[in-house]
Amino acid sequence: MAGVELVAVGTELLLGQLVDTNTPWIAQQLSATGIDVFGTHAIGDNRERIASLVRDVLARRDGAILTGGLGPTVDDLTKEAVCDALGLDTELYEAALTQMIAVFESFGRPMPENNRKQAALPRGSRPMVNPNGTAPGFIVFASDGRFVACMPGVPSEMKPMMTAQLLPWLRERFSPEASIFTRVVHTIGIGESDVDRRIENLFRESENPKIAVLAHDGRTDVKIMAKAPDSAAAERAIAPLQSEIERRLDGFVYGHDDETLATAVATSLHVAGLVVATAESCTGGRLAAAITERAGASQTYAGGVIAYDNAVKIASLGVPQPLLAQDGAVSRGVAEAMARGACTAFSAGIAVATTGIAGPDGGTPDKPVGLVWFAVAMADGTTISRQVRFRGDRIVVQTRATTYALGLLWRFLRGERD
Amino acid sequence: MAGVELVAVGTELLLGQLVDTNTPWIAQQLSATGIDVFGTHAIGDNRERIASLVRDVLARRDGAILTGGLGPTVDDLTKEAVCDALGLDTELYEAALTQMIAVFESFGRPMPENNRKQAALPRGSRPMVNPNGTAPGFIVFASDGRFVACMPGVPSEMKPMMTAQLLPWLRERFSPEASIFTRVVHTIGIGESDVDRRIENLFRESENPKIAVLAHDGRTDVKIMAKAPDSAAAERAIAPLQSEIERRLDGFVYGHDDETLATAVATSLHVAGLVVATAESCTGGRLAAAITERAGASQTYAGGVIAYDNAVKIASLGVPQPLLAQDGAVSRGVAEAMARGACTAFSAGIAVATTGIAGPDGGTPDKPVGLVWFAVAMADGTTISRQVRFRGDRIVVQTRATTYALGLLWRFLRGERD
Repeated sequence: MAGVELVAVGTELLLGQLVDTNTPWIAQQLSATGIDVFGTHAIGDNRERIASLVRDVLARRDGAILTGGLGPTVDDLTKEAVCDALGLDTELYEAALTQMIAVFESFGRPMPENNRKQAALPRGSRPMVNPNGTAPGFIVFASDGRFVACMPGVPSEMKPMMTAQLLPWLRERFSPEASIFTRVVHTIGIGESDVDRRIENLFRESENPKIAVLAHDGRTDVKIMAKAPDSAAAERAIAPLQSEIERRLDGFVYGHDDETLATAVATSLHVAGLVVATAESCTGGRLAAAITERAGASQTYAGGVIAYDNAVKIASLGVPQPLLAQDGAVSRGVAEAMARGACTAFSAGIAVATTGIAGPDGGTPDKPVGLVWFAVAMADGTTISRQVRFRGDRIVVQTRATTYALGLLWRFLRGERD
Repeated sequence: MAGVELVAVGTELLLGQLVDTNTPWIAQQLSATGIDVFGTHAIGDNRERIASLVRDVLARRDGAILTGGLGPTVDDLTKEAVCDALGLDTELYEAALTQMIAVFESFGRPMPENNRKQAALPRGSRPMVNPNGTAPGFIVFASDGRFVACMPGVPSEMKPMMTAQLLPWLRERFSPEASIFTRVVHTIGIGESDVDRRIENLFRESENPKIAVLAHDGRTDVKIMAKAPDSAAAERAIAPLQSEIERRLDGFVYGHDDETLATAVATSLHVAGLVVATAESCTGGRLAAAITERAGASQTYAGGVIAYDNAVKIASLGVPQPLLAQDGAVSRGVAEAMARGACTAFSAGIAVATTGIAGPDGGTPDKPVGLVWFAVAMADGTTISRQVRFRGDRIVVQTRATTYALGLLWRFLRGERD
């Protein structure tokens, strides 16, 4: 039974007081190395329950990798629990003791007596030194050869131990023939179920590479994961599938892997020789923040206005007062006037505007909470506008409206006009 | 056997491509309610393995709470696996179907056929409606009465379902005798180790309530956690400790619990009868976004400018061209001129400005990456300014600079002038 499961030990994890970032990091290292992770667990500082979980994992996998609970305090019980699970006692590892004393010396203080217990490891262990802390890690074996690896829970101690000691050992043990390589295809302007319908048969036909569809706040990603001996072989496996997926999703794909929608917009602006401005009401600065998150944003971004007050819409963006009075701030006319006004105010070639009701208050039967008008305008007067009704709380409306505005700008830059 | 275990479903979790924030959030809600969580798990989109884990959990606990894998795609298998584990088949829930069709209608498009399967739930389920998405949740029972609750994995859909539907049901089922009540004291302008030093002896003296110090992006929180049968008893335990902590941190405490720095600023503005404007360079809209995240922001926020280009600083904010040429955009003089210019441009009583080098490029020996100038100015000309050097990548600099700007505004409104 190949593969491993991961166990994070610590009652604070069960209280939700700490987000466990160790487990995803270890999982990433293992999957990139081609070692399968079949499950991950968090469990409290309870000797019996840890031992029972270790036994369960070893009944179905080749190994268990534990983090946390190796410290000197009374609620650090991982080592004792592993001994219970495997029917082992502990023995003092002189080398571990010497190294611990050296670490304390480097801190300029003597080693407290209760740290001594950290140098006692399950009999037969292969110790892993900890240059960044006092608790050594170890790998220990069940009578049938399956293994349990234990590392400290402090990320700055665990990560170097994993990279320099555990991972090389695992690579040798499993000699994985293949690693997992991932390509992500990002889309905008098409829903998850539509994406799914268009590429559904590819899921069934393809076992390697595998395909997954993931929705994020108004965007949909398609993930292609190939198991291959090296990156060239992975590319050969991924490329034809990627082409087919992109053919089926033509017009919606804005980028790959680490590329963001803001990056895609910046590239399109650069190609068109345009600098953009923003005019925001309900998104309240988030659209500008998404654009300026990128390094080098200043090359394609002039600036923006957050026109919360109608007086600002009039004074800074030149929205006509009668239009505001007649159609209201949340209207096609005002969105378009804001976008055109931003082109003028910032001497920009193109501008994008948002005006809507983020909620929770301010909705009416005609203009409910979540209703947002968007407009993109060019300095020559070419304008498009859209109306969308978003569901969810204020933050969800603001976030999705920001994504939608970037998507609309990107589609406009690709030539979409209706 | 009281208590529950949590299961997050999704192969991407085992590949470490996604940090699971649902599980800690649910754990927090449960522990606050006094319901014990004995373990948490993540598992891939594999029908057999999900079913086997559900059976294992029900063998030792009263219930399992699952998130994820309820979508319409072929790799969403949670419902099928739960049916396998409990020996049930599915039946169509008309109410769930009606609600899903309504959600699609509000999106302005017909429901794709493959979404229909989401309205089929395990026989005997108690459905949980999903006003924020298409997949309904449900609670279903084993023949011995133990339960499995399933919710969508998208946080914006899961959280409202947990709060409004699952948690009240669990509270009734478990009738916990004592819950954990938490009070968070928020501070700004004082570091974690300073907070720690000032209240250190309170940690040792107090077992219930417990105290924890947590640092977040330039702010420091003190958390007081009391185990008590009801909120009145908790309040009696927390109040004296809270007073003592606040006495020791006098001048730095801006709020409690859900109060944000933006809320504290809004309250101070309201009391002072002022409306604020923003003028941002390096924070690129994040300061405005932090202010407008609050419902009702329009009452104390006029609007803002993102003055990325120097031409915008001159045209929209009236920053003198010679000042920009002589001192550079990242300087005390420009920060102060931006704040004063924003008061004028937005007819605001007070304004806050940021100008700095977010990086990774643009640093010089004199003005390194991370250097930011801040200014607060009132319409009458009263101005304060500060220079801070932040460490970290672009996003860290932008985030911390945003927090610092809000903190400076809050301190100014409390009368700090030097």
